[in-house]
Amino acid sequence: MYSFTNDYSEGAHPHILKALMDANLVQHTGYGMDEDHCGAARARIRREAGREDAQVHFLVGGTQANLIVIAAALRPWEAVICADTGHINVHETGAVEATGHKVLAVPSPDGKLTPQMVRQVLEAHTDEHMVKPKMVYISNTTEIGTQYTKAELEELSRVCRRNDLYLFLDGARLGAALTSSVNDLTIADIAALTDVFYIGGTKNGALFGEAVVILNPAIDREFRFIIKQRGAMLAKGWLLGIQFETLFKDGLFYEMAAHANHMADILRKGLEEEGFSFLSQSMSNQLFPIFPDALIDRLSQDFSFNIQEKIGDSSHAVRLVTSWATPEEAVRSFLETLRSLRR
Amino acid sequence: MYSFTNDYSEGAHPHILKALMDANLVQHTGYGMDEDHCGAARARIRREAGREDAQVHFLVGGTQANLIVIAAALRPWEAVICADTGHINVHETGAVEATGHKVLAVPSPDGKLTPQMVRQVLEAHTDEHMVKPKMVYISNTTEIGTQYTKAELEELSRVCRRNDLYLFLDGARLGAALTSSVNDLTIADIAALTDVFYIGGTKNGALFGEAVVILNPAIDREFRFIIKQRGAMLAKGWLLGIQFETLFKDGLFYEMAAHANHMADILRKGLEEEGFSFLSQSMSNQLFPIFPDALIDRLSQDFSFNIQEKIGDSSHAVRLVTSWATPEEAVRSFLETLRSLRR
Amino acid sequence: MYSFTNDYSEGAHPHILKALMDANLVQHTGYGMDEDHCGAARARIRREAGREDAQVHFLVGGTQANLIVIAAALRPWEAVICADTGHINVHETGAVEATGHKVLAVPSPDGKLTPQMVRQVLEAHTDEHMVKPKMVYISNTTEIGTQYTKAELEELSRVCRRNDLYLFLDGARLGAALTSSVNDLTIADIAALTDVFYIGGTKNGALFGEAVVILNPAIDREFRFIIKQRGAMLAKGWLLGIQFETLFKDGLFYEMAAHANHMADILRKGLEEEGFSFLSQSMSNQLFPIFPDALIDRLSQDFSFNIQEKIGDSSHAVRLVTSWATPEEAVRSFLETLRSLRR
Amino acid sequence: MYSFTNDYSEGAHPHILKALMDANLVQHTGYGMDEDHCGAARARIRREAGREDAQVHFLVGGTQANLIVIAAALRPWEAVICADTGHINVHETGAVEATGHKVLAVPSPDGKLTPQMVRQVLEAHTDEHMVKPKMVYISNTTEIGTQYTKAELEELSRVCRRNDLYLFLDGARLGAALTSSVNDLTIADIAALTDVFYIGGTKNGALFGEAVVILNPAIDREFRFIIKQRGAMLAKGWLLGIQFETLFKDGLFYEMAAHANHMADILRKGLEEEGFSFLSQSMSNQLFPIFPDALIDRLSQDFSFNIQEKIGDSSHAVRLVTSWATPEEAVRSFLETLRSLRR
Repeated sequence: MYSFTNDYSEGAHPHILKALMDANLVQHTGYGMDEDHCGAARARIRREAGREDAQVHFLVGGTQANLIVIAAALRPWEAVICADTGHINVHETGAVEATGHKVLAVPSPDGKLTPQMVRQVLEAHTDEHMVKPKMVYISNTTEIGTQYTKAELEELSRVCRRNDLYLFLDGARLGAALTSSVNDLTIADIAALTDVFYIGGTKNGALFGEAVVILNPAIDREFRFIIKQRGAMLAKGWLLGIQFETLFKDGLFYEMAAHANHMADILRKGLEEEGFSFLSQSMSNQLFPIFPDALIDRLSQDFSFNIQEKIGDSSHAVRLVTSWATPEEAVRSFLETLRSLRR
Repeated sequence: MYSFTNDYSEGAHPHILKALMDANLVQHTGYGMDEDHCGAARARIRREAGREDAQVHFLVGGTQANLIVIAAALRPWEAVICADTGHINVHETGAVEATGHKVLAVPSPDGKLTPQMVRQVLEAHTDEHMVKPKMVYISNTTEIGTQYTKAELEELSRVCRRNDLYLFLDGARLGAALTSSVNDLTIADIAALTDVFYIGGTKNGALFGEAVVILNPAIDREFRFIIKQRGAMLAKGWLLGIQFETLFKDGLFYEMAAHANHMADILRKGLEEEGFSFLSQSMSNQLFPIFPDALIDRLSQDFSFNIQEKIGDSSHAVRLVTSWATPEEAVRSFLETLRSLRR
Repeated sequence: MYSFTNDYSEGAHPHILKALMDANLVQHTGYGMDEDHCGAARARIRREAGREDAQVHFLVGGTQANLIVIAAALRPWEAVICADTGHINVHETGAVEATGHKVLAVPSPDGKLTPQMVRQVLEAHTDEHMVKPKMVYISNTTEIGTQYTKAELEELSRVCRRNDLYLFLDGARLGAALTSSVNDLTIADIAALTDVFYIGGTKNGALFGEAVVILNPAIDREFRFIIKQRGAMLAKGWLLGIQFETLFKDGLFYEMAAHANHMADILRKGLEEEGFSFLSQSMSNQLFPIFPDALIDRLSQDFSFNIQEKIGDSSHAVRLVTSWATPEEAVRSFLETLRSLRR
Repeated sequence: MYSFTNDYSEGAHPHILKALMDANLVQHTGYGMDEDHCGAARARIRREAGREDAQVHFLVGGTQANLIVIAAALRPWEAVICADTGHINVHETGAVEATGHKVLAVPSPDGKLTPQMVRQVLEAHTDEHMVKPKMVYISNTTEIGTQYTKAELEELSRVCRRNDLYLFLDGARLGAALTSSVNDLTIADIAALTDVFYIGGTKNGALFGEAVVILNPAIDREFRFIIKQRGAMLAKGWLLGIQFETLFKDGLFYEMAAHANHMADILRKGLEEEGFSFLSQSMSNQLFPIFPDALIDRLSQDFSFNIQEKIGDSSHAVRLVTSWATPEEAVRSFLETLRSLRR
């Protein structure tokens, strides 16, 4: 039984494990304050971002990163705009609301926000009887595998700056976005166009870890206080430093994400050849093919994956996710099984 | 310049003012614990509700009542379902989210929730990665003047009880609902079908005040603690008691609401005769006629009212609200002005 | 049975009631935005404060004022310093903590904070593993009837400004402080020395109402949003405007407070003549004489008052409060009863 | 430069690292739902606790565990009692208050709570104008190295049960407590006497991790929802499972803690021989000797450690912490340096 359920079913890339082993018995300063690894990782990320003034904080997971960034940035009556498919809107058990802030979700067919959507939210919020929109949250890749072009991100950035809105990019799957065949963005572009973003490690070959990169000093003010307050300051913080130091050494971060995308490309091509259609136009490591229910039942005997949503009377879109660790053989085996079932 | 902006532009019915005057120099127990007035008002409301076991708490305003009831009823990860037009979703500056809870807003063309809408939300929330829907919030009348029939409320109550959801009815304009020509509900019906509701005084001739009626003891547990914690325990609580005691003496509550509705009936009929259409099918004291922009400009010279929303290229729906204090003459004058402008 | 339980057992001064009656059927702009009364009251308070730039907001009660000011002023990890007797620490059911902020309570024998106490708290809070003290909260008069001299307030103000701390003065009983025989402060002094304070109406002859005066624009930023969010924006806001307009017309505010203090002076002198000692050195309208338990039992047959705390084996300090409405006769009667019981 | 700064300066015991390596490329179910490791670790902890019905949840860190347990257990107006030295009171940046709850801190000379202290808090909280105490939080070992005897824990448990208070034991350093020479408690005793406790991995040889053990079902209700909501649900949850599985295999948990305590015993004995006195009577792995400032300066050239607090004019108590990884040689070297400096 091979699992395409997600991209965090395995541990970490062997280089990362080795780096953790090597440092294991060395005494380190705690709480992310060590220069050896956290310092080195910060330096590498700043270089990648082309911004020496960027503040970099390492957190354990994505929901944690989202709630902390938003709680740090907003005053109590301020709200965050996102697509209705946004992770913060659907899959974080109300984590943002638990910090006291409203999530203003906008229906979006492709999981992305447009300047027009943002403007509509602004126009609908006119006075103190309503929350004040103050941040725009986007994911890249999105929760349904789509991604922003540089032109799209520039436009969104422009509307945010004109309207005094922070732009926050959730990069839990940033590796997949940056190494997709349709990508034209770099980390430096993102650093230039957003106020804050994070680089996901959990879904790209680290044991865990997200690197929050803050470009706007207004958000960074006393940021370590809120990390601690939300229970997110890892005692052995160097474990995060080591992982990001390794991810950004010799391009390992990109290499792993490219592998995941490559596996998805094979899968997508195979599915297209079989004539299946998809829920979204994903060119990254999450694919959402629409399968007849009978086929899903048969495939489930040999492969695990999630059901995304019902399509018509007797079909569902499923979610197939590839990762840095997916063997090409598993993908080929899936396609062969599929073909044999349809004969 | 006469104002149809809302139903709380004047003070209170003279009977209420007189009762406040009469009690002014008497020493009272504070914080809503006096038997003289708060006790008497509670007794009257329990009788009206046909439930001797109902717990009655007096609060100053509607947003306050909403946030306190919801914060008292829900655990941190639980959420409240409402129509997207719901007051808690739009017009309370994120008050519910500020208590930590997500509002699950469902698009609703007529401002009402149906069992089907509730079921769809339940089906979409399947595990601990999402909030847990636990309460259904409805308004009667709704924010766009529509109202629930007894059959509709019974159905909604049934789906709530089957799914272990609290049903909470915001009655900021309950008087208008209960005295509308299409109403078939009583306060006793509402007490039988909901877990908690409130009776609005502010918008029906009191200086201020909402009477929260709790039928489900799970919500009432230590309710006075959260009233105090949210800064809502009025020191001179008997001021609220006196007002509700007076409202429910000799039917004053119904009499005032019926007057407001009667004024709206005249207005509606006049507008229909002139051929205007409406944003919603309101039979209560809020009307939403659609006027050409040029007409709105002219009317605004003599009357004040709110603009609700843009309709097409050169029209807007406006909101006209009548109250217990609206003189028939003001309504007639509005209609005459309208007619003269169209000649 | 006469009650010395508190200074909010009666309604309002007849001048206030009359003003409310006079305005009753006039249509007003809601939510505190009317120029007629809220505007006029703001102008009077600004004049009293000697600060044309002061922002004035009217709220219904003291706990509400405290939680809103603190939530508006602080970032999530910031905390407020107060005396352990402070109202926010003891008697608000955790209202401040419910907004997410820690209250740093300092033991204080006389209910007042000194610069030394503030400095000790600052020294103990050194990094992001602890909250960051950002505001100092004081009450004048304090919860045990004591009050600040101008010199004391100046010193406290200095330590706050040097350490980038907001100074917030809770004036729920500000009238009593300003008209006490030992007072040397004015509202203008307080406006010059604090960042924000409020003037209490509830405990000085209004039906309800506290006027929050904000001197530091950093606290006023979008303040109306948080008023609304916390359910504290009174629909018929002019009711608050009328009351403060009346309080600050012809010195009514001072006149009522002076009466309450005068009644307390008579009471204090009588108690001293009888040889009783006091829990605190109060020269204002709250007195805390220490009575033998047997005496308390007898007095309780004719007068109501609160027990403050146990003193030794068979005595308690009680709290006797006089108000704008206390008749001199009630005070004399209390003293006579006391004397007769001791014969 | 050897560091006695804390017990989390090194990575993990080699057995733990090996187990992580062995499982690295196996696909696992996420979020702590895997039977292989999380299931196995739960079973071992239940056996240790002698309670098959115990619910076990794995979290990453101590502040996270504290804030989640407390937020899950309390209603908004409920508060938690702790010693003023308690971690939740001092060193968590207001994490508990950020969930909305007041911490009621009681002065305690030895870092422990007594039944008498708990009763005093209860007596002072009498009505809805104050928070309602609902939980007692203790640490074992405490923040100053002291620990509870079985008799003390039994008494505290009794007062909690009689007064409907939850008893919560923070076991961040539970290993040190259970293997101290003066301990007479077992994990089974603690499970029998508390409502919830946790077993610390971070400070006892794991990379990270705390195992929360819930005995009272009222606290466990939908606990996974709040784990997710607070950003604490680790995607690769089996990393926690593997660590606790290893800790409770062949007594590794106890072996590591016993080593840390043994190192502290040597240190304590050496310090006593030199005539130093201590801030607290710690028999566990944290020692608080009082050193003259000049000595501290000299020692700091070769060893790092924290300053705890000022004692008199020219001395400070320092904190020396030993761990599972402390070599005996480091301890001997510290004592030799000390002796040589005093000659």
